[in-house]
Amino acid sequence: MSIFKNVPKIAYEGRNSDNPFAFKHYNPQEVVLGKTMEEHLRFAVAYWHTYTANGTDPFGVGTMVRAWDSYSGLDQAKKRVEANFEFLDKIGVPYFCFHDRDIAPEGETLQETNKNLDVIVAMTKEYMQSSGKKLLWNTANMFSNPRFVHGAGTTNNADVFAYAAAQVKKGLEVGLELGAENYVFWGGREGYETLLNTNMKLELDNLARLLHMAVDYAKEIGFGAQFLIEPKPKEPTKHQYDFDAATTIAFLQNYGLKEHFKLNLEANHATLAGHTFEHELHVARINGMLGSLDANQGDMLLGWDTDEFPTDLYSATLTLYEVLKNGGLGKGGVNFDAKVRRGSFEDEDLFYAHIAGMDSYARGLKAAAKLIEERILDDIIDNRYRSFNEGIGAEIVSGKATLASLEQYALQNNPIRNESGRLERIRATLNEVIFSV
Amino acid sequence: MSIFKNVPKIAYEGRNSDNPFAFKHYNPQEVVLGKTMEEHLRFAVAYWHTYTANGTDPFGVGTMVRAWDSYSGLDQAKKRVEANFEFLDKIGVPYFCFHDRDIAPEGETLQETNKNLDVIVAMTKEYMQSSGKKLLWNTANMFSNPRFVHGAGTTNNADVFAYAAAQVKKGLEVGLELGAENYVFWGGREGYETLLNTNMKLELDNLARLLHMAVDYAKEIGFGAQFLIEPKPKEPTKHQYDFDAATTIAFLQNYGLKEHFKLNLEANHATLAGHTFEHELHVARINGMLGSLDANQGDMLLGWDTDEFPTDLYSATLTLYEVLKNGGLGKGGVNFDAKVRRGSFEDEDLFYAHIAGMDSYARGLKAAAKLIEERILDDIIDNRYRSFNEGIGAEIVSGKATLASLEQYALQNNPIRNESGRLERIRATLNEVIFSV
Amino acid sequence: MSIFKNVPKIAYEGRNSDNPFAFKHYNPQEVVLGKTMEEHLRFAVAYWHTYTANGTDPFGVGTMVRAWDSYSGLDQAKKRVEANFEFLDKIGVPYFCFHDRDIAPEGETLQETNKNLDVIVAMTKEYMQSSGKKLLWNTANMFSNPRFVHGAGTTNNADVFAYAAAQVKKGLEVGLELGAENYVFWGGREGYETLLNTNMKLELDNLARLLHMAVDYAKEIGFGAQFLIEPKPKEPTKHQYDFDAATTIAFLQNYGLKEHFKLNLEANHATLAGHTFEHELHVARINGMLGSLDANQGDMLLGWDTDEFPTDLYSATLTLYEVLKNGGLGKGGVNFDAKVRRGSFEDEDLFYAHIAGMDSYARGLKAAAKLIEERILDDIIDNRYRSFNEGIGAEIVSGKATLASLEQYALQNNPIRNESGRLERIRATLNEVIFSV
Amino acid sequence: MSIFKNVPKIAYEGRNSDNPFAFKHYNPQEVVLGKTMEEHLRFAVAYWHTYTANGTDPFGVGTMVRAWDSYSGLDQAKKRVEANFEFLDKIGVPYFCFHDRDIAPEGETLQETNKNLDVIVAMTKEYMQSSGKKLLWNTANMFSNPRFVHGAGTTNNADVFAYAAAQVKKGLEVGLELGAENYVFWGGREGYETLLNTNMKLELDNLARLLHMAVDYAKEIGFGAQFLIEPKPKEPTKHQYDFDAATTIAFLQNYGLKEHFKLNLEANHATLAGHTFEHELHVARINGMLGSLDANQGDMLLGWDTDEFPTDLYSATLTLYEVLKNGGLGKGGVNFDAKVRRGSFEDEDLFYAHIAGMDSYARGLKAAAKLIEERILDDIIDNRYRSFNEGIGAEIVSGKATLASLEQYALQNNPIRNESGRLERIRATLNEVIFSV
Repeated sequence: MSIFKNVPKIAYEGRNSDNPFAFKHYNPQEVVLGKTMEEHLRFAVAYWHTYTANGTDPFGVGTMVRAWDSYSGLDQAKKRVEANFEFLDKIGVPYFCFHDRDIAPEGETLQETNKNLDVIVAMTKEYMQSSGKKLLWNTANMFSNPRFVHGAGTTNNADVFAYAAAQVKKGLEVGLELGAENYVFWGGREGYETLLNTNMKLELDNLARLLHMAVDYAKEIGFGAQFLIEPKPKEPTKHQYDFDAATTIAFLQNYGLKEHFKLNLEANHATLAGHTFEHELHVARINGMLGSLDANQGDMLLGWDTDEFPTDLYSATLTLYEVLKNGGLGKGGVNFDAKVRRGSFEDEDLFYAHIAGMDSYARGLKAAAKLIEERILDDIIDNRYRSFNEGIGAEIVSGKATLASLEQYALQNNPIRNESGRLERIRATLNEVIFSV
Repeated sequence: MSIFKNVPKIAYEGRNSDNPFAFKHYNPQEVVLGKTMEEHLRFAVAYWHTYTANGTDPFGVGTMVRAWDSYSGLDQAKKRVEANFEFLDKIGVPYFCFHDRDIAPEGETLQETNKNLDVIVAMTKEYMQSSGKKLLWNTANMFSNPRFVHGAGTTNNADVFAYAAAQVKKGLEVGLELGAENYVFWGGREGYETLLNTNMKLELDNLARLLHMAVDYAKEIGFGAQFLIEPKPKEPTKHQYDFDAATTIAFLQNYGLKEHFKLNLEANHATLAGHTFEHELHVARINGMLGSLDANQGDMLLGWDTDEFPTDLYSATLTLYEVLKNGGLGKGGVNFDAKVRRGSFEDEDLFYAHIAGMDSYARGLKAAAKLIEERILDDIIDNRYRSFNEGIGAEIVSGKATLASLEQYALQNNPIRNESGRLERIRATLNEVIFSV
Repeated sequence: MSIFKNVPKIAYEGRNSDNPFAFKHYNPQEVVLGKTMEEHLRFAVAYWHTYTANGTDPFGVGTMVRAWDSYSGLDQAKKRVEANFEFLDKIGVPYFCFHDRDIAPEGETLQETNKNLDVIVAMTKEYMQSSGKKLLWNTANMFSNPRFVHGAGTTNNADVFAYAAAQVKKGLEVGLELGAENYVFWGGREGYETLLNTNMKLELDNLARLLHMAVDYAKEIGFGAQFLIEPKPKEPTKHQYDFDAATTIAFLQNYGLKEHFKLNLEANHATLAGHTFEHELHVARINGMLGSLDANQGDMLLGWDTDEFPTDLYSATLTLYEVLKNGGLGKGGVNFDAKVRRGSFEDEDLFYAHIAGMDSYARGLKAAAKLIEERILDDIIDNRYRSFNEGIGAEIVSGKATLASLEQYALQNNPIRNESGRLERIRATLNEVIFSV
Repeated sequence: MSIFKNVPKIAYEGRNSDNPFAFKHYNPQEVVLGKTMEEHLRFAVAYWHTYTANGTDPFGVGTMVRAWDSYSGLDQAKKRVEANFEFLDKIGVPYFCFHDRDIAPEGETLQETNKNLDVIVAMTKEYMQSSGKKLLWNTANMFSNPRFVHGAGTTNNADVFAYAAAQVKKGLEVGLELGAENYVFWGGREGYETLLNTNMKLELDNLARLLHMAVDYAKEIGFGAQFLIEPKPKEPTKHQYDFDAATTIAFLQNYGLKEHFKLNLEANHATLAGHTFEHELHVARINGMLGSLDANQGDMLLGWDTDEFPTDLYSATLTLYEVLKNGGLGKGGVNFDAKVRRGSFEDEDLFYAHIAGMDSYARGLKAAAKLIEERILDDIIDNRYRSFNEGIGAEIVSGKATLASLEQYALQNNPIRNESGRLERIRATLNEVIFSV
């Protein structure tokens, strides 16, 4: 009994297809730089945006029209499980991701909540086995319930911290049970509303304590997932501690957590922090910390997380360029942390939106591969920094140079000649590459 | 022969004074929390904004009317030295700060440039000795000259790196000669215009190399100044590597430089990075990295560095609160990295602007002292986090708790009770404190 | 039977009071520039933020703990009416404001919805009569219900337009019944999500048609309230048509509506549009369009409408300065379109927050009055523009001058002498004024 | 004797060309929707960015390496005239644009300044006649000289107003002499730094007076150019009066100037005001006010006017879509108000940058034409608003409906059915269109 009755299975038909329910660019088995598109992209559907969210925004109630709306409680949760696997099958995506509270409703007590979760996890496991679909990552929602009003790992209330710890413990067990490839921390309330009533030092210490406990427990139970932490600069709190990649890496390093974690980077979070997405990926990459992606896009003229499906081919190309340069995402993948607009409230829109995102990433992948194969940026960069390969440059890089030896060199080296950075021409070249694939 | 002929010496006259050339709040000898205002605030005048800048902006040429405009070259530089010491004397500020190129003009060659510098440094030293005025910090301008178009420590051109190194070497020697209490690095071109032609990893490695060389050379010549690094997120480059306090601390830590450096934090740089100034100070403080301040303020509706004189008493209070909590600034101080508006082009405005800034910081100091003496925020915070002092909270903080022990606790602890954060009442209280001093 | 049991009636106790449930500055009967504070400020409580909102944000459910939470439907609505009048009485505010859907729940049909509304309106009217409290303005919520997903007056669906019209009609009748002094339009969904599917011209035409119908119907039923329109640049839509004061005035003028409307200006909407609040008031004032205020404040580092209670004394002073210069707000008033933070979830916080806002506006009023009485800004401005009072300036202003006559003048008038704008000194003066009251 | 010695004449070679000095997409004689590309686009080179600017930014001096750097005064100005016509010839652009001060240096007096201008205008006229190149528009620079520190048309100093008037008069005469097709006002200092010392009403009245004088004088001398006004929200001033299209139209309407002016819209100014470029064009278009374009692009993460060459194909497509919908730009054109990056300091970069911009606009034109020919957006919009073509919708649009008649309709019309806005699918379609041309 189908939930998305009006939607057929989506297949690749090429760019000339008139079928709106077809991929024009995402061809899972097409080989790019030695791997299939499917292997490169490791797409995942986000449970919360696709099945749980209903289109609510701060000025209006839900608009989405969904088959599971006529159910409630565990029944509704079960309907969503069915929807998930039908959707994954039809859209041709191998992975999904969820927060604990996306998949099962809270009960009166933590016991009851965990019981609800167990029911849905068991059902999910069966569906996974029969469908071959996999869990890219799971996480614990420690921000929606009022108990987390002042934070979870960074709360001022030790009882809340304990509750959060219990939730993480269960989350790790669920991840183990379902074979999650990663486990994510996004600190929705881990920040402050005002410094005036905040003990930032204690809050950061405690957050680190929670993460260490998670690392220890995962080891204890033999859960080998990659831990990921997801930066965001603000929203819902005025300031989130995991502001951006650099800040998060510093935090992990400070508290001896760096070897246990990588970053799950989100495009819209990057721009809210004042960075391009590719900047955040690049920073993570050169620090060996690039783990996984939350693929979406923001509206650069709006100051909040709009979580739009990614269709900007510039960003898609430069994102995949960093991924390819990183040698792929390892256990990570490309999770669509994206929601259909409030005005796109029909089931079909869920498919159109995923097709739009997947086709855009497929094109980005091919354009990025071309940049790499033809060494377009590599050649520019190698040539531009060539002065560090020999002579005084080599001495600088090797560590032999001192202020004194460099002064001696500089005093007799006049004038200095620079070369144009050629930004405008590079941009024109990029246009040709992106729009030739 | 006076340069600021129309301006008398500025003295404290109290808040009822009608004299625009008087302090209403800054009373250097007034004791606050056991130290004089002068000792707390360690004000410095910024050479570049006060004597070198002429009101130019991207859409217009200079407007400032200055006595030294009728001179040029070294003569002009000498006139500025005179102006500096007359200004410091009249405004009652003990310190000044400069970039090498602020005080002396560049010559045709580095040799000639250094010779120019030597002349002015010698003259400055004499004036310092006779006046008792001191150098809070000096630095090297490695961003204005076209040779730094692609960076200094992060250039792609090894010849430029060598030149920068020579300039830093000279800067350290000048600092030593003049007894500078700190030496600052602000990386005006240390960033990128586009990732497309940038080798970020090499650039960051090289920047660290330059800083290590500086540390080594300072040690070699016995220059005991505190090294400071000044974060800024963007402008002039699209992305500056020293984005904010957290990023900069991470960089220093990554490259083994943390013990040699502290931060010189600027208010307007903080807001451009999406932070309040007090946030940046707080982050630096709890990391033991709070070094010195560039006091100014931005316009929150404008996206560039406006470097206005600081008059916002909210910000002044919370800034000084962090300073007091830090036990002061050590060798650091409060440098007015602020410029009079292009429309405030008369000499008198330089004085009015510094009076405005100094009075505002004096009021901020008194308000901050009151917050501390009456334990207004401390009591709120201590009470708010009290659950971590005993029971399960103490177990968390001590490191005894595990996910399992916390789960056990959480399973029987229902419901959890939180308390209001009381932000609105705290803000009302803050209004009372600021406006009672 | 009290709802806010733990809170006493709030009275003025002066700035030295230790009682958190007292005004330190708002003394309703204190006379400022010939009118009482109460008459100047005409404070109003916003029904939606105070009684209907529950602390929900996009990442979490409600946190507020309210007595009426244990009721639902009409019973809950009635409990809120009781709460409103107890709150108004205790807080000492004469006015309140509401959207139709704040006060009564929607039914299955519009008939039923209107019936619900009638019940609550009748009850409210009784409470108004016995308490003497008044309705500053009412409005229709035409943005929360899913039917308005694509707009109300600017919808693409004529059925929705008709529904909105019916809702406005009822709103005008309710306003008449309760003696509302104003009727407000805030177009929460009157804008677009993307230009790609939008007929902006038709949407604007239709919006104007709706407003004309409202004007006509108000006349027909003898409802003499002042119509107000409230600008906001974005949120919830990507672009709201009533972007800011200038845009809204242009729209009203374009469609022959200017004489029937004034503006209801909100502080946080101003800053989201890139303006200060005082700028928006000033623009409205010099166009004769300043109607009423939605008093709140935003966080300048956040890109969404935070609707905080206003405590910034700089903004409060400059806001009230514009109000006084306008000769007051006429039928308008100061509505606290502000919500307690999600973490301030106790009843007491509602009182603390209103006290904070009212005390801040009281101080702003006194500071603004001092600016006016002492002609501090007037003298600066009169002096600054004095060249337009005589000679060539007078010829320009009178319209006698031409390009040719001015060229003739300019060719012999060399050099031109400007005077400093003295911004820094003016800001210092402002600090003294604000903090002396 | 060539100035741009190393650069050949640029010609169209198609997308497979490897020649960096060739157009890949801009084929001037290619016919699109019945007109040649050249006729559609009417490209112009901006004198100031191309020949006058030298790469200065607020943190550094000029970097550009130009042949005319070895000249000064009028000689330099003449060299630039030669450069302009060689550049126009080589790049294949028919138009140019200038401010008076771009083309000729100021003298000691206005007389001398005008004489300088006359010399260069005469020389320019000769070159125009022999080359067939044309002046798209000229304007007066009333913002760079210190005399305009407090504004030109909005100054507080009547002497400055007179000077500005004289400058406008000369500008109109120059435009007449050179056959300019438009005359532009961009008010670089027409705004305020602070409201505290500003008489906004008088300033706006005076600005309108200046524009009326210009209209009158143009009529008097028979100068038939289209007057254009260029909005910008901020920079250099804190607030510019011509904030955006809506504000500027309102101003023109208020002061009876609307029939005499159209708008010259700039992409980067649009985004600084919080709008997309296509939004500004759309607003101008539906008001009959779309005059001309300043083509460039900003960096959405930077808060100042970066004036980059436009290479974003999304923006180019939607911009040209509005232009085509407007039936073209009439006397207006596409002026590249764009500068090469400070790091792109070689002559070649001027060509690369213009090629990048022209190719991008050529692709935008073709994509926009496809959108129109295939009625892709028209069909979506017509279908979406079809309910206003008949029944109750037609009554609304025709003006027959009233609140009462609509209420009657709404009361019996339950439930209302909306349709999805399909934003995600539309975006995917747009990707296909842009990348198929």
